[in-house]
Amino acid sequence: MRPEDSRVILVGAGPGDPDLLTIKGDRMLRKADVVLYDALVNTEMLSRCRSTAKFVYVGKRKGNAPMAQEEINRLLLWHARHHRLVVRLKGGDPLVFGRGHEEVSFLADHGIKTEIIPGLSSALAAPALAGISVTQRGITESFWVVTGTLSDGTLSKDIIHAAQSTATLIVLMGMGKLAEIASLISALRSPLEPMAIIEQASGPAQRQVYTTAQNIVADALSHRLATPAVIVVGNVVDNIMPGFVSGSLNSYQTSGITHV
Amino acid sequence: MRPEDSRVILVGAGPGDPDLLTIKGDRMLRKADVVLYDALVNTEMLSRCRSTAKFVYVGKRKGNAPMAQEEINRLLLWHARHHRLVVRLKGGDPLVFGRGHEEVSFLADHGIKTEIIPGLSSALAAPALAGISVTQRGITESFWVVTGTLSDGTLSKDIIHAAQSTATLIVLMGMGKLAEIASLISALRSPLEPMAIIEQASGPAQRQVYTTAQNIVADALSHRLATPAVIVVGNVVDNIMPGFVSGSLNSYQTSGITHV
Repeated sequence: MRPEDSRVILVGAGPGDPDLLTIKGDRMLRKADVVLYDALVNTEMLSRCRSTAKFVYVGKRKGNAPMAQEEINRLLLWHARHHRLVVRLKGGDPLVFGRGHEEVSFLADHGIKTEIIPGLSSALAAPALAGISVTQRGITESFWVVTGTLSDGTLSKDIIHAAQSTATLIVLMGMGKLAEIASLISALRSPLEPMAIIEQASGPAQRQVYTTAQNIVADALSHRLATPAVIVVGNVVDNIMPGFVSGSLNSYQTSGITHV
Repeated sequence: MRPEDSRVILVGAGPGDPDLLTIKGDRMLRKADVVLYDALVNTEMLSRCRSTAKFVYVGKRKGNAPMAQEEINRLLLWHARHHRLVVRLKGGDPLVFGRGHEEVSFLADHGIKTEIIPGLSSALAAPALAGISVTQRGITESFWVVTGTLSDGTLSKDIIHAAQSTATLIVLMGMGKLAEIASLISALRSPLEPMAIIEQASGPAQRQVYTTAQNIVADALSHRLATPAVIVVGNVVDNIMPGFVSGSLNSYQTSGITHV
């Protein structure tokens, strides 16, 4: 197949609930000849594909090592050369810590056309589905989204800047650095700074804990909260929307946090 | 109708393209008895509603004054008391500078059940659809989303904090303060700091300009860029994805900005 005959569409799969995919993303998925998807994608979505569609898993392998980006790029290129419509289905949004840019650039270098269909990032959807409004008049005027873990394994220095601001701070992929983040927040804001963890946002097993910087590590341990999870820091956590804590969701709450 | 019989669903309409609505939001829209929508919502979406559905516009009125939040709250309550399923359709995401929290709280105070269906915020979708990856390995580890205009009309102080960081800075509702923002960025980062404006993201009339802090005001004037628009600041603007500038979109580019 000539490169100009095929397309690769990067589709953001959203936070997990298959119905939080966009209509546009859904349409592409239904047309795809092949779908390359990663670990955070809810595979229920794939049941909407054509019966002839092929599925290629490019997420973490046994032993938890992620597939190298170079290998994903090569797979994308190979499938683009052999199929007309390739969907690259990525958890959340393809460009929010998603390395979509690298995939688009690599494919363009090989003459393959690409398109991006944004998806709901868990950075915003997870707080919303836990009743946390990341912006709120009179409380915060901005929010900052940071990755907890850089490619070299260290904590992003931007967390230090963010902790010194009044912004709502949202940390993705931060569970491995939770103790370090909590102690930074305790030192730079306050040990009583409200914090939340939302685990498996939008899925049937979603759970959230509303707590404080000084209690968050103990709470995460006692509730066995694990990846994938979004960490939210700021006074908006202390002002969650009605109906969440006492609702049907699996919510946990440390004393000291109040609600509307 | 008793309060417990009705529901108000806050649905994020996304950035404009009706197909960037979520499947879940679309389903609610198709079932709604009444839809309250604001100025940034693409009204094409409303054609999907039932033929008996009522539509209530709660956006800006003649003379550009927005409807008071208290009036929107009262309208929501009135419709919730008279209809089973009320959809509150809000441009972007209901909780990103959307005052969704205030609506949910007000309705809860009156015994009305609410639910939130997140939408694509233009904060993330607009850069993506202009080829800008808000995070990018080796360039930036975080992004900060700020409103350009506070309720008192002043510029958010968080922009000053954000300008001093290395984060990609994304400003919503900032066109009225563009000169002030550009001069802050020039002073705190550099006059050569890459900046972009994306106007009417995802719509058929989407346009974007890629420029620098020192040129952005002149460029916005010469291309007559106007609200709704998203401003993006940072080196990621200098590294846009292939296929955008020379593509079919309406892109403008100041000298000094390079591309992959």
